[in-house]
Amino acid sequence: MRYGAMRELVLSMKVVLPNGAIIETGGRARKTSAGYDLTHLFVGSEGTLGVISEITLKLFGVPECTAAATVQFSNLHSAVSAVTAIIQLGVGVARIELIDKAAVAAVNAYSNTSLLEENMLLLEFHGSEYVVNHEVALAASILAEHGGTGFMSSTDQSQRTVLWQARHDAAWAIRAQRPGSQIFVTDVCVPISLLANCITETHADITATGILGPIVGHVGDGNFHVVVVVSPEDEEEMSRVESFNERLIARALSMGGTCTGEHGIGVGKIPHLLHELGPDAVSLMRAIKSAIDPMGIMNPGKVTAEQ
Amino acid sequence: MRYGAMRELVLSMKVVLPNGAIIETGGRARKTSAGYDLTHLFVGSEGTLGVISEITLKLFGVPECTAAATVQFSNLHSAVSAVTAIIQLGVGVARIELIDKAAVAAVNAYSNTSLLEENMLLLEFHGSEYVVNHEVALAASILAEHGGTGFMSSTDQSQRTVLWQARHDAAWAIRAQRPGSQIFVTDVCVPISLLANCITETHADITATGILGPIVGHVGDGNFHVVVVVSPEDEEEMSRVESFNERLIARALSMGGTCTGEHGIGVGKIPHLLHELGPDAVSLMRAIKSAIDPMGIMNPGKVTAEQ
Repeated sequence: MRYGAMRELVLSMKVVLPNGAIIETGGRARKTSAGYDLTHLFVGSEGTLGVISEITLKLFGVPECTAAATVQFSNLHSAVSAVTAIIQLGVGVARIELIDKAAVAAVNAYSNTSLLEENMLLLEFHGSEYVVNHEVALAASILAEHGGTGFMSSTDQSQRTVLWQARHDAAWAIRAQRPGSQIFVTDVCVPISLLANCITETHADITATGILGPIVGHVGDGNFHVVVVVSPEDEEEMSRVESFNERLIARALSMGGTCTGEHGIGVGKIPHLLHELGPDAVSLMRAIKSAIDPMGIMNPGKVTAEQ
Repeated sequence: MRYGAMRELVLSMKVVLPNGAIIETGGRARKTSAGYDLTHLFVGSEGTLGVISEITLKLFGVPECTAAATVQFSNLHSAVSAVTAIIQLGVGVARIELIDKAAVAAVNAYSNTSLLEENMLLLEFHGSEYVVNHEVALAASILAEHGGTGFMSSTDQSQRTVLWQARHDAAWAIRAQRPGSQIFVTDVCVPISLLANCITETHADITATGILGPIVGHVGDGNFHVVVVVSPEDEEEMSRVESFNERLIARALSMGGTCTGEHGIGVGKIPHLLHELGPDAVSLMRAIKSAIDPMGIMNPGKVTAEQ
């Protein structure tokens, strides 16, 4: 079972508008065509249109059975191609995450584990026991066809936690690799069919640029992060990281993707928003911003601000 | 497998704006957080914000196996409760439709079929053969527990067409019941958990009001239509139909639902939009409309227009 991105699970929101009015953007029906979709206008608006004070979400029952699985790939492109095949064949996977070899190495050092230091996919399956067992077996065979090795799965909760530990520890583990450093997390999303090329080219760029940047991806959505370890006082390194990030975004956009799958525009990606959607679309966003917040009091300087 | 409502499958649109500019609202990535969600602002805007000239949709592979099924219920409330149970238990159904007893009778008369004249559910399942067979059996047992009888299913394409014929013929069949008449199709959507009550109360209201109004529902979404047969020159009948529709919308709103799941606001539901979301939300929609279409040249008089 797939649930969709978080934004697809928002049914309604209570929002305090800049003029002080309080609105509800929708009700509890799964489908509505009642006027403009205010709910999704506010999702991802980064506080620039109003203050969201309540959210109504779609809920799902706890699945009868949940399985977790992990598998290793010596070849990064093959790992991501296996994900594409699983999705294109309609196998019912609840989530698929990638942590690359560098991230696995960081986890081993941080969590004192002895995971094979290869690229790793982590999968989760939800449904009846019968369906889950079948989907796990289907996924296992597709992963093996693409060169995946060491496939392990479990429906036991404590075993599932062990299998997914590397994913949960990854961010902390990467951060801990260079004491005193900070992390700079990128965030692009591309069509699933181009994800293997995008990740492989990005990995080659990381190596060529000489930066420490493990890749952690919500690959089932085509979305991935490079978690770059930086020393902000090292201007030369920062400059290399920034140029790497520019190339990454250009690569994602050239593939029909986006400069941000999850994190948003904020201040840093204002020029990229303009590049991605063009001046007319950004002008439209500015017109909406001005209409709703004419005094510019909601999170000023972000998303649609002129720079 | 469930795919979500059509609006959730729209990735991007090309839109000609009132000022003549042509924008693309997104790219081909499944997830994006790049600025305001213009895509969903235009979905369902009924031509009032711009002219949509291209749409990019999410696609899915043709499923390995598709099954269709039908089942009868003498009790309408039980039929809808069975749908709620199937959804709440997470059974993987691609679509579930209801046609009530009156609609089945209309189909028999129109299509010369001999369907049992009871309330009828029509279901469809997509996936691997193994999973589909399992989900069909699961659904069959839930339907039987709720009093469903005469369950039939098939994975054969010509058999599937026969099983679903009643659904495809329903609108024409209902229209044909009274020569020279017209049909007035309502459209509400409520939370799934309240759907059985909403449909049962609506059915009792149809009977009490003395109108001819078979119920046809996309019940898997909580959305249903009453297809009322009317003679527009009969003022007394029109008045009864209009008061029935007012009560139906009030009932849906009192359950946290919406006055329109699919059809939109147009002209006729402008007062209901105001009632559903309140004056502040509608004022916000008007501000957006004015910002994007200051001259009011896009489908004037609709959705947010003052009446």
